[in-house]
This record gives sequence, structure tokens and C-alpha cells, in this order.
Amino acid sequence: MAKPATIQYNLAKLYWYGRQYSLDGEALTKGRGGTRTIDVISAIRAKIAGRALSAGDRLPSIRSLAASMSVSPSTVVEAYDRLAAEGLIRARRGAGFYVSPTVMPPLALAEVEPRRDRAVDPFWVSRQSLDADDAVPKPGCGWLPPDWMPEAALRRAVLAHADASLLTDYGSTRGAPALRRLLLARLAEDAIEASIDQLMLTGSGTQATDLVCRFLLRPGDTVLVDDPCYFNFRALLRAHQVKILGVPYTLSGPDVARFEAILASERPRLYITNSALHNPTGATLSLPTAHRLLTAAAAHDLTIIEDDIFGDFEPERSPRLAALDGLARVIRIGSFSKTLSASVRCGYIAARADWIEHLVDLQVATSFGGPSPVATAIIAGVLAGGSYRKHMDELRQRLARARREVARKLQGLGLEPWLMPRGGFFLWCRLPGERDATQVARAALEEDVVLAPGNVFSVSETATSFLRFNVAQSNDPRMWDVMRRALKARAE
Amino acid sequence: MAKPATIQYNLAKLYWYGRQYSLDGEALTKGRGGTRTIDVISAIRAKIAGRALSAGDRLPSIRSLAASMSVSPSTVVEAYDRLAAEGLIRARRGAGFYVSPTVMPPLALAEVEPRRDRAVDPFWVSRQSLDADDAVPKPGCGWLPPDWMPEAALRRAVLAHADASLLTDYGSTRGAPALRRLLLARLAEDAIEASIDQLMLTGSGTQATDLVCRFLLRPGDTVLVDDPCYFNFRALLRAHQVKILGVPYTLSGPDVARFEAILASERPRLYITNSALHNPTGATLSLPTAHRLLTAAAAHDLTIIEDDIFGDFEPERSPRLAALDGLARVIRIGSFSKTLSASVRCGYIAARADWIEHLVDLQVATSFGGPSPVATAIIAGVLAGGSYRKHMDELRQRLARARREVARKLQGLGLEPWLMPRGGFFLWCRLPGERDATQVARAALEEDVVLAPGNVFSVSETATSFLRFNVAQSNDPRMWDVMRRALKARAE
Repeated sequence: MAKPATIQYNLAKLYWYGRQYSLDGEALTKGRGGTRTIDVISAIRAKIAGRALSAGDRLPSIRSLAASMSVSPSTVVEAYDRLAAEGLIRARRGAGFYVSPTVMPPLALAEVEPRRDRAVDPFWVSRQSLDADDAVPKPGCGWLPPDWMPEAALRRAVLAHADASLLTDYGSTRGAPALRRLLLARLAEDAIEASIDQLMLTGSGTQATDLVCRFLLRPGDTVLVDDPCYFNFRALLRAHQVKILGVPYTLSGPDVARFEAILASERPRLYITNSALHNPTGATLSLPTAHRLLTAAAAHDLTIIEDDIFGDFEPERSPRLAALDGLARVIRIGSFSKTLSASVRCGYIAARADWIEHLVDLQVATSFGGPSPVATAIIAGVLAGGSYRKHMDELRQRLARARREVARKLQGLGLEPWLMPRGGFFLWCRLPGERDATQVARAALEEDVVLAPGNVFSVSETATSFLRFNVAQSNDPRMWDVMRRALKARAE
Repeated sequence: MAKPATIQYNLAKLYWYGRQYSLDGEALTKGRGGTRTIDVISAIRAKIAGRALSAGDRLPSIRSLAASMSVSPSTVVEAYDRLAAEGLIRARRGAGFYVSPTVMPPLALAEVEPRRDRAVDPFWVSRQSLDADDAVPKPGCGWLPPDWMPEAALRRAVLAHADASLLTDYGSTRGAPALRRLLLARLAEDAIEASIDQLMLTGSGTQATDLVCRFLLRPGDTVLVDDPCYFNFRALLRAHQVKILGVPYTLSGPDVARFEAILASERPRLYITNSALHNPTGATLSLPTAHRLLTAAAAHDLTIIEDDIFGDFEPERSPRLAALDGLARVIRIGSFSKTLSASVRCGYIAARADWIEHLVDLQVATSFGGPSPVATAIIAGVLAGGSYRKHMDELRQRLARARREVARKLQGLGLEPWLMPRGGFFLWCRLPGERDATQVARAALEEDVVLAPGNVFSVSETATSFLRFNVAQSNDPRMWDVMRRALKARAE
């Protein structure tokens, strides 16, 4: 009596494979194989659909099917391999091919859309942003849209490396020397004079931070972050099971008096910050604040991770802790995820040479080698090609326009930026009337708009009525409709 | 009086930039820019070399140099950008270009060659293998040479994805659905029926293992591994600060009686193993052993990571703990680093759906997203293309020949394989006369041959006279000369 369900299941299954087929068909005509392979695939699909072949049945031998369809045996092999890759049939080594005993149902809905019932914690924005459909407006996400990135330069770099042995081999433990030399030159532009043994490449900026945390921290240690700070610092530190403290962030960096007091009373092991274009506020560390922070850090033997991920978005260079300190107790971290590509990922760590030596071991143990040699070759290719500076010049100009425009629109809705940043793509805004940003974000998500509510950035959870807007991801009219409705609903 | 040193330094510098130049020159003629750009680059280099421009000097303005050299301003911009990317000059935003105050010296020798004075610990083989020059024979390394890998299929897949938005965006938190569907079909071939929410993609197989360890382990926990086992399990577990115990590995899997005794007395939290073609021995888990292991694991609430990285090298499928257990307490891990590419990296974890949910959060926190979308698209492209099975058939045949041949040669030198494996690329061999393999490996490294000495694989350090040979990396005559000399030297 399970027939109707079974039939429905099989219809869904056939629909799915039908869809796969039409997609594959196109690919096939472009690839090797061609129409004869498609004919064989179609014939087998038809037999399974028409029940001439059922779950567990052995398929015709390659030789016999080739003869009966007047194709070459290699065409049948190609067709069977593609059907096996999809899961419709299975190979048993040395024993031919069989119809799969179970066939996967079409992708469940839960798979297509991220879950919405999650707690609004530091993971919330990441999961919603990363898993949202391309069409969903994401003013809360932390990166630029694909069409802001230098796709042409990346494509050129990819094509240049498509036929190298780079495609197959592991990379060296510290990462490609060519990219490290280019990075040293860029560090020198920030007045950070490092030697080649003070630099290593990592899988990403986040992995760089994680690696340093693994090296320095033990469960139960105390770590200081800015309040507010990049929400994933909080998620990452939770994974390290440390006690997280926040220091209020001001227009010129962390509140120095509070910073000194916390160092004296709580003895944190580590402070994680990003100096230039602070995330989420867009504020900038001033030189006197930097000096006082480093003096206090030296007095209390505090190590500092300075994440420079937004540095290249600055119109003019601002002070860096790493430059002032000369990489003695400051560890500089960066990546190209925000400027070049988040897909071709690569981060780096610049630090004391003896620390780098340990960090390299740690990266071997936990990732077996550094970033993909293909990724580092592509990034080095783009950087050495000389188009990077022009790309960044254009991005800065485009972002300046977008910041002005989005700030104006937000002000029209009663949202006030905490500060008008010198650069970058974030506006940290307070909702009118002390509204709860988490509720606004939940309501927006119901209408397919991903916002970034303030408290995910705040250790003390005192940013209740703030939202962080990515100006490069805020041009979809739906987002503004949703904002308008969400604010109105809350007002009522 | 520092002149001579400075001159020497500058000569080295010029030599280095000269070398860069000739390399760049070739790249330039192929890329955009062309000979006019090279002319400008040469002119600036000549001025710096001839001291017409010194450290800190401002370069001619773009407009004036363009006029004096009769080139377009964009040619000068391109030339300056390339020189800046190399570090010879620096851009100051809005203030023109300057000769760099310090110039990087040529790459130090320590950078070109891995350090040789390291302790022969579980990191030793990884570091020596990963950082060795391509020309160095590496019979001790754990992967296949580039020319054994399906470069043509990878290249096709790379080219197919070179112009997609895949190039710039972050991936979804669980990794590309297309590759996950293909993996589910492959798991089903191993009789592991998993649903889509039981599978996630990771940056690599090592990162998959690391992620599970982070999820399950706390410092001070006890973890069981095989003795001998893949040396990086030991390195990875050290990073987790756990107590590591070993269970002797027999021809049919771990010694079951010892396994049961250790579970009863030491209560390990986790057991990490690879069942099919065990690394380094090449032994295979038997079905009765698998059953007893799982029974003991259930009695003592032990979780098991089964790393299937060599599974596809088997001639016929052998028992898998994950299949027997149905992913209840066994976590299945795998990757394509050994079969397709170690550069286009991607691993996966199949486990209980609720564990996957937590592991996804952990991956977001520590890596911000899963593997590169480019990497997953390339791997899915190769798998769906249907050429994978043929590639693996060829690899298995080629490896069978190589195993026979290398075993014969080793036996000629008095080295006896502990077992002649059914598949894979390792031979675990005992040196004649109880020789110390670490000393042989050190001597071989002096002659640029990377061997893998037994004790890096052994928790109890009782594999003193064993070496692991990679038969696909053992065809260089230099390696055999070095082996012969090393054995002779030790005999004297």
C-alpha cells in the first residue's frame, strides 16, 4: 500500500534526474563524449524510469550494450561512469554496473535555505550571509558583491596557472616565496620592516587568527576584544573556550583608561583588534592611543593580534600597532578576501621569527601545509601584475560614493551613523527610538533580507539598537522596502 | 666605513632584481603592458642602479616621465605599479612614488632549503617533504608525483570555472551542494547511507580531522591511535594537548584484545584510524575485527574517526567501521588530496546530523566558511565528468606494478616488507640487522633524499628499524645509490 508514495517519490526522482540530464546534456556536448554518450545515458534512464531496470538489477555489459546501440565500448563506459557519478547506478569492481538500491531524493528545502530559527548569536550573521541565495539582499554581510571584485585579473591569473604542476601538488609549509616577497614589500609600505622568516601564508585571515590563538591560548585564559568588534572574533574565541572581555571602542581606538584598568586587573593574555577602519564602527586608531596601548601591553606582557583586513580600503595610511611595535609583541594578520577574492583564499601572519617557526608546525599539524599553491599563485599573479593599486583606487572611490548615498537613505529612515568613516564599506547606525535591532533583523529575514544586528558585535550586548550596513550590498530596493516596513511595524 | 658591505648588498640586490626583471620581462610580453612598459621599468631600474635615484627619492611624476619617454601615462602607471609590487619603489597615496628606503636582500639560503637540524619527530617527514625542492627524491613522502595525477581533467575543470562568480565569493557553510550529492553517491557505494544533512565539506582531510578533534576533545583527554599510525595524527593530537595511546596494529586491524583492555582501563574519548590500506602498514581491517572494535566502542562510549583517504586505492572494497556502525559513533572523513590534487584541496566529514550542525559552526568560527568554491567546483567537475573511475583504475594498475618492482629492489638491499599490501602506495619495511632508521634517514637527507623513518609513526617508538617507502616516489636512481651507501655505512 506504499505505492502512491513510491510513485510520487519516483516522479520527484525522475524530475530531479531529468533536470540533471538537461544540465548535463549541455555540458556533455561541450566536453568529450558528445551526443552518442547522451544517447546511452538517455536509454538507461528510460529503462530505469520505465521499470525495465529496477533497484539492484545488473546493467547490460559494456560490450553487449555497445553492440546493440552501435556505439563504441568507450562511449558506454563514459555513459556508465557519468550515471555512476550521479548515483543512479553503481559500479562493483570487476562485476559490472547495477542500478542503485536507493536513490537520493531531491534536495530537501532545509538544504536550499538556511535555518531561520537559530539564536541571534555571533554565528547568526555568518550563517545567514554565507548560506543565503545570491538573489537575497545582504546589507548585513561583511564582503563586497562579486561585480566589485577584479574578476578579469583573477581570470587571467587562473588561466596562467591552469596547466602548471601547481594544480596537483601540496604547497610548501610557509607558502609560495613569490607571494611572501610581494607581501614583505607591502608590509614595508606600512613601515613594518620584516624579514622573510617572519612571514607565513595561511588558508585565510580567519585561519591565521585561529592559528595564533591555538599557539598562545589555553582554555580558561582571558582575551580582550573591542566592544563592538567583528562578531567572528567572538565565535572564534568561544571555540578556544577562553574568557572574553570587551573594551569600549571610541572614535580614536579603544578607551585607553579602561584598557589599562582591564590589563591591570584581569591580566588578559591576548588582545585582538583591527586598527584601520575598525569593524564594525569604521573608526581609526590614533597615534597617541596606539602608543599608550603598546606601553600598557609591555607593562603587562600582553600580546596583540592586529588584523589588517580592511587596511587597503583606507584613503591614507593611519597608525598601525605592528609598525610602532616592530612586530615584537604585535602579530600582524591580513588576507585578500575583502579586496580580491573570498574564493581564492589566502591569509598571512607576520610575527617574531621564533613564533612563526612554531606556527608553521601548528599549521602542518592541523592543515598539512599552507594555502593552496593555486590560490597563492593566482594572488601573486594579480599583485605582481600591477593592476591591484588601480583596482583599489577604483574601489575606494566607488565606496566613498556608496557610503554617502546609503548614509543619506538611512538618515531618511531615521538611522544615524555613529560616525561617517574615512573609508571601507560599513556604516554602524543607531535605530531611531532605541529599537531592538535583533527583532528588526529577524523580521527582515522573514522577507529574505540579511541584516547584521548590533549585539552580535558586542561582548557586553549593549549595542541593542545598532545595525551594521554594508554600503556595497545596500542597493536592492527590496531591502529598503523591508527596512521601511520593519521600522514601521516596530513603531506600532 | 660601511661602504664595502653596502656595495656588496646593492650588487646582490641588483642581481636579484635583474633576475626578477628577466623573469618579469617574459611575463610582460605575454600580458598587457608590452615592451613600452618594460622600457620604463628598465629606465627606472637603471637610474636606481646608477644612483641617479637613491633610497627615499621621489620618482618623476607620471605625466613628466610619460612626456620625456614618449609613452602614454598609463604605461608609466603600469610600470610604477609593477616596480611597487616588487618593493623597489613605493606609492604614497596622493603623493607620488618614492624609491624604497630599504630593499629586500636576496632570499636567504635557509629559505631555499628546509632546515636539517630539526628533531626527527612527527613533523620531520612533513616539513622535509613539503619544503624539499621538486628535484629531491622523496620516497618517504605521502603522496603521488604530479605526473600520476589527472592534470588534463583538472585543467578542463579549472577552465570551466575560470569565469564564474565562483572566483570571488565565499562558499556556503557546508560546501557546494553539487559535490555533496556526488559524495553521498560515493558513500552509498561503501554501503554508508547518509542524508545530505550528515555531510559537510572542509578545507582538507586534515582540517576535517582537526575540526572533529576540536569538537570532541579537551586538553588532557586520552586518544587512541594505531601503533604505527599516520605520523600527522600524532602531530595533530599534540596540538590538542591530549594524552596519546597506541594500540598495536596487526595484519587484520588493531590488536582487539589490547584494544578492549585499553578501553576498559584508560577510557579514551576517541580512536583515530584508517581502515582500508592502513597507513603506514598497508594492512586491512577484517570484518570480525571491525565488529569487535565497534562492540567494545559501544560498551565504553568511544567515538571513532575513520579516515578513508586511501579507500579508492583498494582493488576491492574491504570492511568499513562507518558502514557497519551506520555513522552512529563512527565519523567518516576523506579527501581527494591523494587521488586528484593536493593543491585544489577539499575534505569532507560524514557524521550524525546534530554533530555536523555543531561542526559547521566550528568551521565558520575558525575558517569562515568551508573550502574554496573554486576547489569544490573543480573536484565536482572531475567527479561528475566520469573520468575519475578510469583514472583510479589506471592508478591502481600502475601502483601494483610499482609495488612489485620497488619491493623486489628493496629485498635486494635486505629490506623486507612487513606485508605485501593489496593496494596503495606504501611499503612498510624493516631494515636488515636492526638498524636505526632515524640515522639512515638523517644520512640520506645529507644527500638530498627524504626518507620516512619508522619511529615518527610509532607512539611507543618501537618501529626503530622500519622505513615507509612510497613506491610512486622511489624510481630515482639517486635514491637507490643513497640507500646502498647509507646501509653500507651503518654496517661498517
